[in-house]
Amino acid sequence: MDLLKEVRVVPDFPKKGIQFYDITTVLQNPDAFRVAIDEFVKIAEKIDFDVIVGLESRGFFFASVMAYKMGKSYVPVRKKGKLPYETVSEEFELEYGTDIMEIHKDAVKKGQKVLLIDDLLATGGTLKAAAHLVEKLGGEVSGIICLIELEDLGGREVLSDYNLEALIKTTE
Amino acid sequence: MDLLKEVRVVPDFPKKGIQFYDITTVLQNPDAFRVAIDEFVKIAEKIDFDVIVGLESRGFFFASVMAYKMGKSYVPVRKKGKLPYETVSEEFELEYGTDIMEIHKDAVKKGQKVLLIDDLLATGGTLKAAAHLVEKLGGEVSGIICLIELEDLGGREVLSDYNLEALIKTTE
Repeated sequence: MDLLKEVRVVPDFPKKGIQFYDITTVLQNPDAFRVAIDEFVKIAEKIDFDVIVGLESRGFFFASVMAYKMGKSYVPVRKKGKLPYETVSEEFELEYGTDIMEIHKDAVKKGQKVLLIDDLLATGGTLKAAAHLVEKLGGEVSGIICLIELEDLGGREVLSDYNLEALIKTTE
Repeated sequence: MDLLKEVRVVPDFPKKGIQFYDITTVLQNPDAFRVAIDEFVKIAEKIDFDVIVGLESRGFFFASVMAYKMGKSYVPVRKKGKLPYETVSEEFELEYGTDIMEIHKDAVKKGQKVLLIDDLLATGGTLKAAAHLVEKLGGEVSGIICLIELEDLGGREVLSDYNLEALIKTTE
């Protein structure tokens, strides 16, 4: 299955000139969702990790299933103000604006190996912030897996310190 | 396993006087997450449905895995402005404020049976809005399953038109 064909490209979202990769069409098609998850898991099986971190919100769709299937501890990284317990936070730049991400302080223990999951790698800002959050807690990012990598936005360079994989590579 | 004991109660979040049921501790414990998902699926297997709708964001943790395991079409209901394609929307009252939820117009087809999934039933406002969104698209809500029902907040009465189940029932 060509997973890229299952992704809907929506022009001018969230603002004019941006092509948005809408992965809800992958979720809507049970065959496509199964193939995507199975490919995520196949890559993850080659990585040594204790904890899966999913990035709000679209990372949750994939990370949740992987954590269940692989029997790993599952931790969400969320936008500022969403996590109820004590957190550490990291500010970062987006393709369109800035934002703050947070993780619960007790979510990753010192020395734990962590796999980060998100739907899309664009400029890499969100994933880099999530990696820093894990490191602030004393964890080690042993891998990052995305559904889609937009190769011409430089995210791979921003994340060059990490082991990065993508199921789909494309250009804008 | 007593799943309620796996939920962390955080006082005064998001504002003073609110006891917040933090389900991230369930996600963090692979055994608890597996038990929760397996109980969700056990209830869902008795319900006739074509589509699983997960509610942003904590509903995604559970709905994603259920859709994968049960091979069903999976649709997110999200806060205003998050879904990139054409949407219908519904405004509703929260325990603390008002909000607008949206669903993609092509996510549910006329006559399809839909199962709604969320983490917590409090006043029922969010779930009622999600049910209305499904109905606006011509779908039928054949069931609603939550992880936790706060029994003294009246959510069950607000959702009395629907077949509602909860894995955990408690009072604030």
